[in-house]
Amino acid sequence: MNLIYAIDLFGTFVFAISGVLAAVEKKFDLVGAIVLGFVTAVGGGTLRDVLIGETPVGWMKDMNTIYAISAALPVCYFFKNRILNLRKSVFLFDTIGIGLFTVLGLQKTLGIGLSPVVAVMMGIVSATFGGVIRDVLSNEVPLIFRKEIYASACLVGAIVFLIMEYFSANKDLNLIAAILVVFIIRILAVRRDWALPFNP
Amino acid sequence: MNLIYAIDLFGTFVFAISGVLAAVEKKFDLVGAIVLGFVTAVGGGTLRDVLIGETPVGWMKDMNTIYAISAALPVCYFFKNRILNLRKSVFLFDTIGIGLFTVLGLQKTLGIGLSPVVAVMMGIVSATFGGVIRDVLSNEVPLIFRKEIYASACLVGAIVFLIMEYFSANKDLNLIAAILVVFIIRILAVRRDWALPFNP
Amino acid sequence: MNLIYAIDLFGTFVFAISGVLAAVEKKFDLVGAIVLGFVTAVGGGTLRDVLIGETPVGWMKDMNTIYAISAALPVCYFFKNRILNLRKSVFLFDTIGIGLFTVLGLQKTLGIGLSPVVAVMMGIVSATFGGVIRDVLSNEVPLIFRKEIYASACLVGAIVFLIMEYFSANKDLNLIAAILVVFIIRILAVRRDWALPFNP
Repeated sequence: MNLIYAIDLFGTFVFAISGVLAAVEKKFDLVGAIVLGFVTAVGGGTLRDVLIGETPVGWMKDMNTIYAISAALPVCYFFKNRILNLRKSVFLFDTIGIGLFTVLGLQKTLGIGLSPVVAVMMGIVSATFGGVIRDVLSNEVPLIFRKEIYASACLVGAIVFLIMEYFSANKDLNLIAAILVVFIIRILAVRRDWALPFNP
Repeated sequence: MNLIYAIDLFGTFVFAISGVLAAVEKKFDLVGAIVLGFVTAVGGGTLRDVLIGETPVGWMKDMNTIYAISAALPVCYFFKNRILNLRKSVFLFDTIGIGLFTVLGLQKTLGIGLSPVVAVMMGIVSATFGGVIRDVLSNEVPLIFRKEIYASACLVGAIVFLIMEYFSANKDLNLIAAILVVFIIRILAVRRDWALPFNP
Repeated sequence: MNLIYAIDLFGTFVFAISGVLAAVEKKFDLVGAIVLGFVTAVGGGTLRDVLIGETPVGWMKDMNTIYAISAALPVCYFFKNRILNLRKSVFLFDTIGIGLFTVLGLQKTLGIGLSPVVAVMMGIVSATFGGVIRDVLSNEVPLIFRKEIYASACLVGAIVFLIMEYFSANKDLNLIAAILVVFIIRILAVRRDWALPFNP
């Protein structure tokens, strides 16, 4: 479906922007900005592909992904302030991307015959580990280990998707439901400052 | 052999506990605790599988491994203090797990036709790189680069195993001998504060 | 061609030395020195092989690479001061190695049918990510994200190689031209303190 592919590409672009801006904040040079943009955008899906053995990894066979990431660089350079002002809408879009990446990663893992539990895990990895690798390369403790609850939003979205698949054959509907769930949980989490402390 | 599989699973569980406790110490949240537990437990074997091309990586095909790791979370939550008191026995068990992981990693690598030298290296990676990845994700310098000599204990154990394989057809005996060697070296190392400085 | 293989091995050896010396500077122990030497020398090519699906990764099938890396340890131990005095010539050689690694990585990627753009990227990864992994394991921000412009030198060298391949069938000539380009750019960059800031 073309709309899904368009959202996928735009999500990749938004992820790349967040990577490039992290590099700017760290005062990295052009190489650092390119690497962080790339890694944030495709790091999660790349790790998933490597772990499940789907190599060469996905983005290598899709030039559009590479173009979408490359576009983040001039866009950040010329419109940095406008992007920072638009942060809220970018954040909204980001969350749609996260939901989509989770479901696509889940489907790809199921597609090669792995169990639903592993598929859910790989869905979450697809959506969140780009940010983890970005943080490790920036010499920071990964954000999702401390505050951001979006890995949990992905978990709930992935489970909702699996349950809907069981009852409904309408793939598009199931996808939209899962994305909506991720979206709502994340918005609520940010609004109400939800956290998941683990203090035994 | 069922005993080997049982030790393997229990070793995985102990490794996961050490990862979860590292996350607690770092004040990570639930997501951080899950990721660190998982990565510490299966990170070394996962890296080995990816490098030698045995994908999807091992734990994806064995739900018991996933259950053993998941069990570490409630156990740490409810029995944290008891675990810290039992630290010495946990440490003992940990060392048996390390020896076993080394030999299993070595055998898997030999099994796909790679050389004994590479097999020894992959055995050590299986046993030690879970901890390395845990430390990198926690933004720490890996412990085994500074103090812990257990990579060296694995090296000696792996070589003992290879030599015994050459002379004896009794796989169980060879395995037990290798595990014992790793165990004795590590106990001695901790007791006598052995170190392997490299100051040219 | 034997000369190419000899330069490849010697480049690997020089990279391993730089890794071992980084471990010495960080006061790592013997295990840390071995791991950093190894990772600096083959980390880039290993990452490339994993991403493009050429596993078991290259160095596992070539004992000479393992010997070249192992040799770095005693050499650093006994001749540390002499190496530091020779730093300038080592630096020169290092740069030849970087150019060669770029082209070899590019060729390997083209060889499995991936696009020239991906091949250029994998060439650069082959030459530079050993250092990135070394820095991550040492808990440092990767050097190439801040100062060193050698990723850019690799980029230009890789493009020159591709263009020459289009016009000339003389593989050796094309290789030498690409290596020369990387060499000249890097020397000029160091001499004139070139940088590639990215400050939107």
